[in-house]
Amino acid sequence: MGRVTVRRPVRRLTPEGRHRRPDTLAAEEPMELRVDGRPLAVTMRTPGDDVELAHGFLLAEGVIGDRVDVATARYCAGVDDTGRNTYNVLDVTLAPDVPPPATGVERNFYTTSSCGVCGKAALEAVRLATRFDPADSPFRVTAEVLATLPEALRSRQRVFAATGGLHAAALFDATGTLLVVREDVGRHNAVDKALGWALLHDLLPLAGTGLLVSGRASFELVQKAAMAGIPLLAAVSAPSSLAVELAEEHGMTLVGFLRGNSMNVYCGEGRIPG
Amino acid sequence: MGRVTVRRPVRRLTPEGRHRRPDTLAAEEPMELRVDGRPLAVTMRTPGDDVELAHGFLLAEGVIGDRVDVATARYCAGVDDTGRNTYNVLDVTLAPDVPPPATGVERNFYTTSSCGVCGKAALEAVRLATRFDPADSPFRVTAEVLATLPEALRSRQRVFAATGGLHAAALFDATGTLLVVREDVGRHNAVDKALGWALLHDLLPLAGTGLLVSGRASFELVQKAAMAGIPLLAAVSAPSSLAVELAEEHGMTLVGFLRGNSMNVYCGEGRIPG
Repeated sequence: MGRVTVRRPVRRLTPEGRHRRPDTLAAEEPMELRVDGRPLAVTMRTPGDDVELAHGFLLAEGVIGDRVDVATARYCAGVDDTGRNTYNVLDVTLAPDVPPPATGVERNFYTTSSCGVCGKAALEAVRLATRFDPADSPFRVTAEVLATLPEALRSRQRVFAATGGLHAAALFDATGTLLVVREDVGRHNAVDKALGWALLHDLLPLAGTGLLVSGRASFELVQKAAMAGIPLLAAVSAPSSLAVELAEEHGMTLVGFLRGNSMNVYCGEGRIPG
Repeated sequence: MGRVTVRRPVRRLTPEGRHRRPDTLAAEEPMELRVDGRPLAVTMRTPGDDVELAHGFLLAEGVIGDRVDVATARYCAGVDDTGRNTYNVLDVTLAPDVPPPATGVERNFYTTSSCGVCGKAALEAVRLATRFDPADSPFRVTAEVLATLPEALRSRQRVFAATGGLHAAALFDATGTLLVVREDVGRHNAVDKALGWALLHDLLPLAGTGLLVSGRASFELVQKAAMAGIPLLAAVSAPSSLAVELAEEHGMTLVGFLRGNSMNVYCGEGRIPG
């Protein structure tokens, strides 16, 4: 798995004593994403699937909506001081008809000229940016199928099993089949990698799939799902208030606390036939 | 607790049936941080302790190192469309002798003119920016005291107890006393709020305290601890590879998987007398 994990010695302290043993850590490295040669963002991520990560990030930011919107995606040829390519700078060239992304801290939010940033403005900004409408999706999945997902995800989290330190995201269909699983030290990166995989496989909009995340459901994760046209987000842990508001506004289904045989449905219960 | 939590109805699905019940969600709202009137960052955070959050963020970014570096911190007077102040834009005015922060995606990383962004460059950037050196701190804490911290933290996580959806950060001393506990939907924000509290109480550098976090230890959390001069970071969950490298480089102690009576010590074991 290359740089996905790193082995290190660790001291294990227990009431019985101290023991030196090897440990496996989740790798974390900065990645700079450039668009047409200009730096757009730096994210701390687990190396691997970086092209997917870049595509998913740009999809979620509203820059691209199809694989043809990207002309090329390649690592820069730069090297570190030992002469090796760092593989930490990815340069994406957009197709000629694709407008370059906005930059600056306000790019995700409609900010008035004075002080208007608020949850409502954030919801509105996502509405304006969404290419695909999840609201009309006929996607349905039973509670029984949903209940199988966390265990299915865990069994495919190869890096988590080794390190205990990774977030995961997966796309699943109505039968509970996981189409793709991605892991990363950053929860947003895991989702971006899964969405980028789908975009590169021409699966957008993802009207017939749900998104499963191993942790909480924040505003930004619901935003990413909405930008890909995903009608259902299921989280193992709790959602935030704004995550629920955004899911409701987009006619999505939001499931939280998906554990054991039970779950909370915050909105869009109609997609889970009883 | 005001906007810290939000009540909503939820449908609970179990094998026994479906029940409507009230649920308490962790509030999430965007906050725009402005410095001298110019937007610096937007973060999704749980409202509350915003002045601390701003101070901690600016400390971790290397902009300020003392409370006197900030002349004023106030909410902008803007209102939403119902005429209420959103309390989501905080404007910080720096003291006259404090240079304004760098902006742009590269601000946390030394980036060469070609493609040099890598973990080593990120470590170097933190070294250059740190005002306080945690390496020489004589701070010591026993494994027995460390083992008491997660339960002490959990018992003071008021919002987590209600919502199940919050990250927490705390500062603690050698006796295991928690000096401050802060919660937030964002893990970085919880740490920034705790550090901002310390800065506002003139406690920097925090050479005699440890930082406890409820989740994983990432590069950025170690960076924040280092910027405040904290010699020991303890995490309930796993560290990343770069988190360990950064802690080691700064002569810090990094503890992970702090659960029950046991823990992993990744570096700096000398601060935990056996």
